[in-house]
Amino acid sequence: MKTIKIIFLTILLSVVWSGIQAQEECNEMFFSKTVTGDFKSVTEKVIAEFKKVGFGVITEIDMDQALKEKLDDVQMKPYKILGVCNPGFAYKSLQAESNIGVFLPCKVIVKQLDENKVEVVSSNPAMLMKMMKNDELDKLAKEVAKKMKTAIEKI
Amino acid sequence: MKTIKIIFLTILLSVVWSGIQAQEECNEMFFSKTVTGDFKSVTEKVIAEFKKVGFGVITEIDMDQALKEKLDDVQMKPYKILGVCNPGFAYKSLQAESNIGVFLPCKVIVKQLDENKVEVVSSNPAMLMKMMKNDELDKLAKEVAKKMKTAIEKI
Repeated sequence: MKTIKIIFLTILLSVVWSGIQAQEECNEMFFSKTVTGDFKSVTEKVIAEFKKVGFGVITEIDMDQALKEKLDDVQMKPYKILGVCNPGFAYKSLQAESNIGVFLPCKVIVKQLDENKVEVVSSNPAMLMKMMKNDELDKLAKEVAKKMKTAIEKI
Repeated sequence: MKTIKIIFLTILLSVVWSGIQAQEECNEMFFSKTVTGDFKSVTEKVIAEFKKVGFGVITEIDMDQALKEKLDDVQMKPYKILGVCNPGFAYKSLQAESNIGVFLPCKVIVKQLDENKVEVVSSNPAMLMKMMKNDELDKLAKEVAKKMKTAIEKI
């Protein structure tokens, strides 16, 4: 009876632990850095740093402008959404999971906080891909996440 | 002593339950539909159906072409990534969470399966936003998810 209790508790604790771990991973959503500088220069630096780690910009949205055009009474500080892509990783990811395109390209946002203060934020692909329960994707996403984190730290 | 055991087990079971629920939500990743038709017509139908529910296409990537240009020996069937956006929801989401831009615009992929068979897939924003632990975002994402699901079902 004691052995059964111990087995039951061990199983329960391991499920609890995996649940807590899954929740923690779900919470690590972003990589970010706040820098001093004007919006244009910071954006150029972001593009340059991502290029150094093999990522090119393939989409660019000025969200503040796009929303100002479509909606009345919207005043937003500059907010740019860059879609960055490393062709090698993109191809390997698509081979591992054909629906992965709904998460491509990876996103990097550049947002004006104050007059000379700009924040750069990216998603954490390692966290996103974890949800897909695909070992090959996990491995690729961790490599991509490392490169993206490096680029953001160097801005 | 018995009461403490019961309390301990109740807490443990509730954490297990929330962990299992979080994992289930994490698995509902996509909305999809496979249709008969040529790639171009299906893409036009996708754009039209998303327009009906208030979403415009703001980015468009022909992933097969982009990868063919950048990588050697890559042969991919047509694979288009559309970035769709509803300005009202995008603005409200940004007000609720300033980093939400890393998930904008919402993605819809159009991919050729066979000669006359095309699959349309979108992410499920309700699942993605669940991870952010933000009630306002949850509410918005559920509305967006409903609209996206409707559009895909009508293709």
